Amino acid sequence: MNPLQELTTRLRGLLSPAQVITDRQQLRTYECDGLAQYRVIPGLVVLPHDAAQCAAIVGHCAELGVPFVARGSGTGLSGGALPHAAGVLIVTAQMRSIVEVAAADERAIVEPGVINLDVTKAARPHGYYYAPDPSSQQICSIGGNVAENSGGAHCLKYGFTTNHVTGLELVTPQGELVSLGGRAPDPPGYDLIGAFVGSEGTLGITTQVTVRLTRSPEAVCTVLAGYVGAKEAGNATSAVIAAGVVPAAIEMMDALAIEAAEAAVHCGYPAGAGAVLIVELDGPAAEVDAQFARVEPLLREHGAFEVRVARDEAERALIWKGRKSAFAAVGRISPDYIVQDGVIPRTALPEVLRRIALLSQEHGVRVANVFHAGDGNLHPLVLFDDAVPGAAAHAEEVSAAILDLCIEHGGSITGEHGVGMDKAKHMPLMYTSDDLDTMQLLRCAFDPAGIANPGKVFPTPRLCGEAPGRRKGAHPLQEAGIAEVF
Amino acid sequence: MNPLQELTTRLRGLLSPAQVITDRQQLRTYECDGLAQYRVIPGLVVLPHDAAQCAAIVGHCAELGVPFVARGSGTGLSGGALPHAAGVLIVTAQMRSIVEVAAADERAIVEPGVINLDVTKAARPHGYYYAPDPSSQQICSIGGNVAENSGGAHCLKYGFTTNHVTGLELVTPQGELVSLGGRAPDPPGYDLIGAFVGSEGTLGITTQVTVRLTRSPEAVCTVLAGYVGAKEAGNATSAVIAAGVVPAAIEMMDALAIEAAEAAVHCGYPAGAGAVLIVELDGPAAEVDAQFARVEPLLREHGAFEVRVARDEAERALIWKGRKSAFAAVGRISPDYIVQDGVIPRTALPEVLRRIALLSQEHGVRVANVFHAGDGNLHPLVLFDDAVPGAAAHAEEVSAAILDLCIEHGGSITGEHGVGMDKAKHMPLMYTSDDLDTMQLLRCAFDPAGIANPGKVFPTPRLCGEAPGRRKGAHPLQEAGIAEVF
Repeated sequence: MNPLQELTTRLRGLLSPAQVITDRQQLRTYECDGLAQYRVIPGLVVLPHDAAQCAAIVGHCAELGVPFVARGSGTGLSGGALPHAAGVLIVTAQMRSIVEVAAADERAIVEPGVINLDVTKAARPHGYYYAPDPSSQQICSIGGNVAENSGGAHCLKYGFTTNHVTGLELVTPQGELVSLGGRAPDPPGYDLIGAFVGSEGTLGITTQVTVRLTRSPEAVCTVLAGYVGAKEAGNATSAVIAAGVVPAAIEMMDALAIEAAEAAVHCGYPAGAGAVLIVELDGPAAEVDAQFARVEPLLREHGAFEVRVARDEAERALIWKGRKSAFAAVGRISPDYIVQDGVIPRTALPEVLRRIALLSQEHGVRVANVFHAGDGNLHPLVLFDDAVPGAAAHAEEVSAAILDLCIEHGGSITGEHGVGMDKAKHMPLMYTSDDLDTMQLLRCAFDPAGIANPGKVFPTPRLCGEAPGRRKGAHPLQEAGIAEVF
Repeated sequence: MNPLQELTTRLRGLLSPAQVITDRQQLRTYECDGLAQYRVIPGLVVLPHDAAQCAAIVGHCAELGVPFVARGSGTGLSGGALPHAAGVLIVTAQMRSIVEVAAADERAIVEPGVINLDVTKAARPHGYYYAPDPSSQQICSIGGNVAENSGGAHCLKYGFTTNHVTGLELVTPQGELVSLGGRAPDPPGYDLIGAFVGSEGTLGITTQVTVRLTRSPEAVCTVLAGYVGAKEAGNATSAVIAAGVVPAAIEMMDALAIEAAEAAVHCGYPAGAGAVLIVELDGPAAEVDAQFARVEPLLREHGAFEVRVARDEAERALIWKGRKSAFAAVGRISPDYIVQDGVIPRTALPEVLRRIALLSQEHGVRVANVFHAGDGNLHPLVLFDDAVPGAAAHAEEVSAAILDLCIEHGGSITGEHGVGMDKAKHMPLMYTSDDLDTMQLLRCAFDPAGIANPGKVFPTPRLCGEAPGRRKGAHPLQEAGIAEVF
């Protein structure tokens, strides 16, 4: 019996039949996450109900040397939950309890399969919400958010997932169930929570998360400003930040993104706008008023031909609907598209947007821009039609050139979507091999056998056990011939 | 030649005579840091001038198996920079360049020996400052702040050192010079910066730090409120936080601390106050006004008999002078004292202060309280006279009992002073041996030989190389007989 068969037999003894999936058709439904350009049918899928089952599954993987990949809702955009053909996909969707809402401590304790927005729903009656808000917040899971250190529109003011996790229970790649941190911030000892958040499933599987709750603001002011072009909107963004105001969010959409959103959800953005900014202010009412008095003239001075303030929750929701549905909406104006994710210093916004427009013209490839302008986190959508031979490759080329632009301007290869499968190859653009080796010291410490989400994040796996600083050889999994699916 | 002699010979070939200290009298000046109750004369002291020298020194330590301890200004309060008798103390005080103030990027790049306040001085002309402000900010170094994840009065609103470091250059315990992060927040890959900040010198030595600069607020409002006792002041603190206001700082001092501060710096706190609160609000002027309008009635409703607002910078400075000099001032009313550092949930403040008062009465030991009330970070000062036989031990007992109180109320054994030498023994109060083993996986990955600041943070060193989850034996240094000074 090969190791995967042996694992299947053992897990059938441990779990109910519905929790162990081996049927080829059912396995196929898990072949990709939100990044559909990579597809691998998993060797086996299991759906644990609790932390103990999770630990037992991973323990058997460790004994048998079977790779495992964790998956929450499967909405990730970097292929971080791409399955392993000779491994097991551990789906946490059935671990969906909100264990406790501890409002007095400003914390919620949840299982990894809990949907992001459900944390806010549970906290709202207590006057709190969960701040990190990926566009996919209605379906993405907290476990996935932890793995990818997910961001969202409001992370400009409130920070990323890593700023909102104070405690973790997790299963190490050795199958041990351990706790890190708790309800208090900044506990003594190493900040392993910080290292674990954003480790993209390469250090183990989260089984319980303690998150910080944020007090619901007394007032929210959502401003929509129309500009003739992205350059003007970019300058206005820089001006607001330079004035020392930190809005809850500053989002930008360009003409193509606006067109798509209008077609999809009729969001009623200013007619003829070449770009819009959504600026949201929140906090005590008096503070929001004071901020608005500073922000409005800045938006106009930099070319806004219309500045509209949402008068009620319905108007506010419609403004955000346009933004949050933009990715999906682009599907209405193009059969296929690549979602890129890169970061640049805010000061470089106008220049990089100009260069992206140039790239688009030169290559005859349409690029829609929808992004978190306030923190310089770009999401260019590169449009193409897969039915046209060579179009996908051409779009990939433009997409990669945009990433090069980000690096050239002192930025980063990913803002919030993660490295995953998709960008492991780009890591050497940002890090030397010594830097990457240093990171993999941690990987080797937690996962010496390299069975936790192998092939992700790092372009070249480090052979664990070699002395730090030495060059690496082939990865044990490669030597065993089971990593060839990558 | 023993390893230390061999190291001395090698370093004499590498450094100038003034950089290598072996004279017994000179060595003695380095025998302790700010925690004078532990003293060890270092085997050797070296003062590197730059990162390359630092890397070379550590490289030789690694080759020869000689333990090393890093020291900045030596102001730490947990004995984190306590030297090793058979090792080398690497003092970074001569690495004191401010490499760059990049105001447009809101970053400063500095060497580890740079004094905390000097970062603010360099940033101020650009309209920025460095937010973390330990009471020792006029003398403590950034490298030490990074090692200890230092806090300060304004960390309530602005976060600890870990929230202000975006890039690090460091020498690993293998002697490799590596870079982590840079100017951008949340880069891809593991957050090793987060793990390194607060690792207390056990993962290597920082040689360059990229810190976030914070925009100088438009307005600052410093409020001094007098209460009959600590209970009332504690309730007022809880009320302000519960109202959803986050002041830049909420500091509390009790009667004994006020008495000491008045004697030392004549700070003019409200006459007859059994406790004072210092509440500082900052931000845009309109926002500060709005916050003050919410805070003032809350302070009065919970018993403030006097609420005074600093009218100018001189009054503000005097209010803070009383607070920031309080530790030293206690030396005027007691020949000796222990500075304790613990954290409790803010909601437990009144109860824990009551229990501390009870402990003080029962034992006949005076305890002064000076602390960061806003984030529940207590600093009880336990007073004693070392000339009285048994008094020191008695004070230690009360100090330890206060720490037990913190744990009992769901708190932590240290808020900002670190674990160091002093509290390694208390770590098992917060963590299981599995939790501590998991942390030491990281230690072993960076420092398999255990030469980086051995004996600190962890009560029982893990024997690196054993499989995770197994029990540990004696530490290699203990086996070699050179760790007996601990």
